Amino acid sequence: MTRVRIDMFASLDGCTAGEPSPEHPMGADWNRLTEAHIATRTMRERVFGDTSGGGTTGIDDQYAAAQFAGVGAEIMGAGMFGLHANPDPDWKGWWGDRPPFGVPVYVLSNTAPRPPIPMEGSTTFHFRSGSIQRVLLEASDAAGGRDVRVGGGVGTARAFLRAGVVDHLHVAMAPVLLGSGPRLWYDLRRLEETYEVTSEVAESGTIHVTFAR
Amino acid sequence: MTRVRIDMFASLDGCTAGEPSPEHPMGADWNRLTEAHIATRTMRERVFGDTSGGGTTGIDDQYAAAQFAGVGAEIMGAGMFGLHANPDPDWKGWWGDRPPFGVPVYVLSNTAPRPPIPMEGSTTFHFRSGSIQRVLLEASDAAGGRDVRVGGGVGTARAFLRAGVVDHLHVAMAPVLLGSGPRLWYDLRRLEETYEVTSEVAESGTIHVTFAR
Repeated sequence: MTRVRIDMFASLDGCTAGEPSPEHPMGADWNRLTEAHIATRTMRERVFGDTSGGGTTGIDDQYAAAQFAGVGAEIMGAGMFGLHANPDPDWKGWWGDRPPFGVPVYVLSNTAPRPPIPMEGSTTFHFRSGSIQRVLLEASDAAGGRDVRVGGGVGTARAFLRAGVVDHLHVAMAPVLLGSGPRLWYDLRRLEETYEVTSEVAESGTIHVTFAR
Repeated sequence: MTRVRIDMFASLDGCTAGEPSPEHPMGADWNRLTEAHIATRTMRERVFGDTSGGGTTGIDDQYAAAQFAGVGAEIMGAGMFGLHANPDPDWKGWWGDRPPFGVPVYVLSNTAPRPPIPMEGSTTFHFRSGSIQRVLLEASDAAGGRDVRVGGGVGTARAFLRAGVVDHLHVAMAPVLLGSGPRLWYDLRRLEETYEVTSEVAESGTIHVTFAR
């Protein structure tokens, strides 16, 4: 059965990035949130093409591998593709020539319709302006029984959580305090009541919190 | 050597209580934050006088016991004693006839000086209006080599954290989202940089986060 899944990064104080700036579109603190994740063997191989066998292989790596396993389609906000950063209709986003998804990716967009962009490695970007429910239906069909992953950003993730359609939320909480930035937990009071919540601490100090149905 | 210690409760979204109301001075969500703590054997015996041997004995209980161990003096804000709730100078606060501290307790207060209140069980309440540093100096003397514990509330705890005088912060994070209420982590950006941060998940699902020097 298709599940809807989200993986997010947050600080101990619930920020998903620092304040963005022109030099640091993800915020200057992004590295502090994702450091342990980027250091995993899975991310080194899958995203950075490093097949030398380096990278951590502990609990962080188990979560890194799980985020790719069994995913049949991806949904992301316009900002995560890069639509806001570069409105050029021929630009293919900032995921490079061979994005790490390897599945159809549905980009939520309110701008004019644009044709799909097929990329290397089985990723195709589709642009959709319909409701969450409608895009989710299409992505579920495309996933063919595998899971649909909502990749972010935080506004998109929260919209899906508030809509009540998410079956599995994993948050990697880094043991740092950012003090400001987008808030993961804003407006999600009592979210836990329809989930089982479990947590696990990785060797890096990252706290992996999972909301599962 | 005297250390300065703090133990706090927070939700996953960093709230230390829900919004207070006349019926619920600690906020209606206080029970959700403290449920696992109240259920420990240590709290049942020490605070509720239940010597029947009931209560949980796992990781939550280890932290409950640790919060009392080696403490020689306590500091708390006026609200935690009850000064705001009841300005009657003869009222002895809402900790009952035999408060669980068993040591001198320094209550921060900007109101008129009042004499100390000796209670049953070695607790004496002292009222002080000086600076954090000055009260801390006096409490350290009184602790006689044992630790000084800053009991709260959250405003008092944050003031001591911002002043840079806290050696050990333990936060019991309950896996719930309150959505609003006083914020533990507000204005503490990069606090972790002068501490070692470790975390541990209890059987109850509570995440115990420790900042230690």
